[in-house]
Amino acid sequence: MSSPLLDDARAPGYAELTRVQSRLYRYSHIASIVGWDRNALMPPRGSEARAAAEAELSALIHRTRTDPRLAQWLAAAEAEPLDDLARANLREIRREWRDANALPESLVEAKTLAGARCEHAWRTQRAANDWRGFLENFREVLRLAREEAQRLADDTGLSRYDALMDRFEPGVRAADIDRIFGDVKAWLPGLVSRVQAKQHREKVIAPTGPFPVPAQRALNADVMALLGFDFSAGRLDESAHPFSGGVPEDVRLTTRYHEGDFARSLLGTIHETGHARYEQNLPRAWLGQPVGAARSYGVHESQSLSFEMQLARSRAFVGLLAPLLVRHFGGQPAFEPDNLHRLWTRVNPGLIRVDADEVTYPAHIILRYEIERALIEGEIEADDIPALWDEKMQRLLGLDTRGNCRDGCMQDVHWTEGAFGYFPSYTLGAMYAAQWFAAMRRATPDLDARIAAGELAPVFDWLRDHIWSQGCLWETPELVLRASGEGLNPRHFRAHLEARYL
Amino acid sequence: MSSPLLDDARAPGYAELTRVQSRLYRYSHIASIVGWDRNALMPPRGSEARAAAEAELSALIHRTRTDPRLAQWLAAAEAEPLDDLARANLREIRREWRDANALPESLVEAKTLAGARCEHAWRTQRAANDWRGFLENFREVLRLAREEAQRLADDTGLSRYDALMDRFEPGVRAADIDRIFGDVKAWLPGLVSRVQAKQHREKVIAPTGPFPVPAQRALNADVMALLGFDFSAGRLDESAHPFSGGVPEDVRLTTRYHEGDFARSLLGTIHETGHARYEQNLPRAWLGQPVGAARSYGVHESQSLSFEMQLARSRAFVGLLAPLLVRHFGGQPAFEPDNLHRLWTRVNPGLIRVDADEVTYPAHIILRYEIERALIEGEIEADDIPALWDEKMQRLLGLDTRGNCRDGCMQDVHWTEGAFGYFPSYTLGAMYAAQWFAAMRRATPDLDARIAAGELAPVFDWLRDHIWSQGCLWETPELVLRASGEGLNPRHFRAHLEARYL
Repeated sequence: MSSPLLDDARAPGYAELTRVQSRLYRYSHIASIVGWDRNALMPPRGSEARAAAEAELSALIHRTRTDPRLAQWLAAAEAEPLDDLARANLREIRREWRDANALPESLVEAKTLAGARCEHAWRTQRAANDWRGFLENFREVLRLAREEAQRLADDTGLSRYDALMDRFEPGVRAADIDRIFGDVKAWLPGLVSRVQAKQHREKVIAPTGPFPVPAQRALNADVMALLGFDFSAGRLDESAHPFSGGVPEDVRLTTRYHEGDFARSLLGTIHETGHARYEQNLPRAWLGQPVGAARSYGVHESQSLSFEMQLARSRAFVGLLAPLLVRHFGGQPAFEPDNLHRLWTRVNPGLIRVDADEVTYPAHIILRYEIERALIEGEIEADDIPALWDEKMQRLLGLDTRGNCRDGCMQDVHWTEGAFGYFPSYTLGAMYAAQWFAAMRRATPDLDARIAAGELAPVFDWLRDHIWSQGCLWETPELVLRASGEGLNPRHFRAHLEARYL
Repeated sequence: MSSPLLDDARAPGYAELTRVQSRLYRYSHIASIVGWDRNALMPPRGSEARAAAEAELSALIHRTRTDPRLAQWLAAAEAEPLDDLARANLREIRREWRDANALPESLVEAKTLAGARCEHAWRTQRAANDWRGFLENFREVLRLAREEAQRLADDTGLSRYDALMDRFEPGVRAADIDRIFGDVKAWLPGLVSRVQAKQHREKVIAPTGPFPVPAQRALNADVMALLGFDFSAGRLDESAHPFSGGVPEDVRLTTRYHEGDFARSLLGTIHETGHARYEQNLPRAWLGQPVGAARSYGVHESQSLSFEMQLARSRAFVGLLAPLLVRHFGGQPAFEPDNLHRLWTRVNPGLIRVDADEVTYPAHIILRYEIERALIEGEIEADDIPALWDEKMQRLLGLDTRGNCRDGCMQDVHWTEGAFGYFPSYTLGAMYAAQWFAAMRRATPDLDARIAAGELAPVFDWLRDHIWSQGCLWETPELVLRASGEGLNPRHFRAHLEARYL
């Protein structure tokens, strides 16, 4: 594999750009590790000094990204003799540069600080269902996010929401999302009803706990190893809100344990392991340059959902998990593979997104998308969120969330930290994942038999060859086309749900 | 408590300096947390990218400390109308500036990188007793440390070793150390013999393990709480080489557990808790400025040794620990307080510095001091270390270390990371600690009775008033004089040893 670095003599402008990128990569490494630490380990009284330190680092990164010399180096590099790899790297450098230069340093710093404060208070406010307290910090986060959106919109000519979303899913627009989500809204309620009617007749045995935390930890580690996670280049720890952090060379996953329910942590860990393997298998020779990074949030989510939804909840893979459960918890009737598979494909409309099943999950996303889009476009205010949340939960999933912000609009960390425009990536990810597995099954017709026999190489090899190894070499539509032979086609997702659940 | 910040109008040069210091404080926060993470958590394959990222951050900090404008602001500030607090802060800013500006950025970066590489490899090389492998990395660390020493010497007019030591113990010179250590060498072998002869007649019951790690963790947490550690502003974790890291707002201690021996971890944790309380009780209003930092490495060590040696191993305090041991491990004859006290004041010449008793500890320091001084002054080479180590261990403690580098010259992280000139601080710390407790006993004649009754406030209040709250307001000799009514007087240390051990 060649390197995206070229010598100075042939391409002096491009060489300068790659040097700045290497420096940014190292600063970002530091920022990732302290951010992970804040979420996983930091004691409460460390918060204020940490917020100030992280804001200082964010400002430094922003200054580096907005160095005035970058514009002239970018212009020079365009005219230099670059190979395809360097050309792709230059495209990504320009994308980063454009995003960064739309925003003044003071705004970046203020938003980081406000987000960190809001997030820290949210940790206790959520448990206390303290929406009023949360609003005091959140209004400032929203104000700054709107300012950010306006500046990005001015810079790109996009709408405010499109401008935010473009940073997570380059090239995807609210109009695309409206079309895709409009389609889903048309068939989802009917599908949920049919699946529930079918599952109503099925007998399912619930596992009997408690499941001691040390045994759950050991089980998770075994399953991560089965899924190819490299423990010499990453860790699994615990945090209130599970996430995947760190850097490609040192991936940090977190989970949380409940003694009464091992499956939440196990399936969450499998999900994060999908993210982790993408990072751990990015092209090593390109690391440090944008072309060596993961493609987008939606493509990233397609990896976690390939692991959690496409692979782990399949009947074939459940047959591999069952003996591991017996080994760590002892045997019980619920661990019979067909029963486990029925359990892990149960469809039950519920309040919590991260606990939602595969079929109702898009409803959680559609709801958030509609609210955050209206928030950013200035059509509604922060105070309007609980009532809208309730109305949409009622309409989409038939659930009442009145007075319950803890399990409603305060459940996610995204808005808390000021990340708007991110949510659609989850459902794009589910659609990409279904499309990857459709392609995999064309390449390996006996895929499920191979998985059932413990042969996971056809899955990992396909993902490595078509996704992981590609970094940011292609823009998303080209990556999708090269990987699966067609552009994003949401029918694969619908077909997957109908095949698995009906 | 007033702030060391002044408004711009009255003191524009000083105001600029304090702004740079605030920024440096935030960068150092980030550096401390990732450094802690590297030592406590980082998986092995994360090492290379981390070393590059930390070197980048070190270089940034160095650039900030060597900004050419600092010289003119320092000159301007000298002529500005500063109060005593700001004057003290300016003195410390100038000290930092002088140290930083003696070294080029390339040297700082290379030394950080070489130190991190050597330290990472050392983790496995030490266990494998692989001195030859270690030397391959260590020669480069030593070469860069000598270059550093030469540049500092050129800048200060001190000898190379004095120039290094001055950064840890400002104002203390090898000539002082020679005098103090010469005195210790005169009476220490005799004292060790007399103590061993006395202890030879004493009956001591060894505790019977195993002591499960979870119980040890819980015991350590209880004892830290008894000693006033603030868990909302710090943590206790595990690492191969216990250390105290983090920042004053978020102090990170580490320890290591052995199921067969709870005392190593417990007493080590008490030691680190002494460091931690100093950091947690530095003057909050001054944090972010050099005047708000801990005074010196020797004064820092005087806090850990006040906790571990002066307090925790006293007969009075052992009476408080005994019931905690029974609570966490169940009762056994060894936990009888008089027996525990005899156990924890046993004098046994041994190979490992961090496990050494209070009486033989200075021998470990004298040995290291003599070798590192000769290394830095160019009188010996890295290859000479094992033979010299063995010769001195033989002479000072009568121990043979031939062929055993693991428990000899490879046991410490200091040289591994390139920290030369640090070791004398340990024994200065022991001497300061003895002097603090002598002063405390003059202020509170019934101190031991109060401790035995569980009243630790007289100890903590004295330390807070005389040491913790003072930050860097005074230079060390002035701090010692104000705290104890006299300059450093090593007779307090000798008197303490003779009173406790004879």
